[in-house]
Amino acid sequence: MSDDPQLVRKFQRELNAGTVSLVLLAILGHAAEPMYGYQIAKQLEAVEDGSGMFKQGTLYPVLRNMAAAGLLESEVEPSITGPPRRYYRITPRGREVLAAWRRAWDTTRDLVDALLT
Amino acid sequence: MSDDPQLVRKFQRELNAGTVSLVLLAILGHAAEPMYGYQIAKQLEAVEDGSGMFKQGTLYPVLRNMAAAGLLESEVEPSITGPPRRYYRITPRGREVLAAWRRAWDTTRDLVDALLT
Repeated sequence: MSDDPQLVRKFQRELNAGTVSLVLLAILGHAAEPMYGYQIAKQLEAVEDGSGMFKQGTLYPVLRNMAAAGLLESEVEPSITGPPRRYYRITPRGREVLAAWRRAWDTTRDLVDALLT
Repeated sequence: MSDDPQLVRKFQRELNAGTVSLVLLAILGHAAEPMYGYQIAKQLEAVEDGSGMFKQGTLYPVLRNMAAAGLLESEVEPSITGPPRRYYRITPRGREVLAAWRRAWDTTRDLVDALLT
């Protein structure tokens, strides 16, 4: 059974591939103000409760990809305490995609849960 | 917005990458007898209610991969009505992996749902 952890890690990676973008877009969809990467990571960490699902390093490429796809806008601002920060906000297009992704997530989740019981 | 459907399809593909293996393993975990691919596809179709999440052609490679990983055993049996059928059953190792995947799914689902609300 020594390679079971590997199969579980692979499964978790596959689950994350879809869900990390959804979760990031949802956080920025709720945010009252633009957020920078570290802020988002901290908010995720508070919710995930040590499960380590979202590694900080994996968030940045996802944010950049979503910005490239027009779902987010970003702006660099100087910081008093360190290097400049890139702030992200959701675009109107991002809100439309978020709504569609939520529907896809709800359907898939319900289907998987129905088949698991 | 003409490319939004593409972003939704990509998201759905990513979600499916993780969940199809889980769902197939769960169906075989519940099955009282070995099942062949078409039987499994019909059972999935009945539950998914036309959403088209599980295309029959995508199930066969997943079944083969899980057999190669020792999660399933298979056996070919002749059929009166057509070509021989490959019957799959879950292995003890498959049951262990199924239990671990379910835990990973439950955790991820709850986390995503918590972040979406």
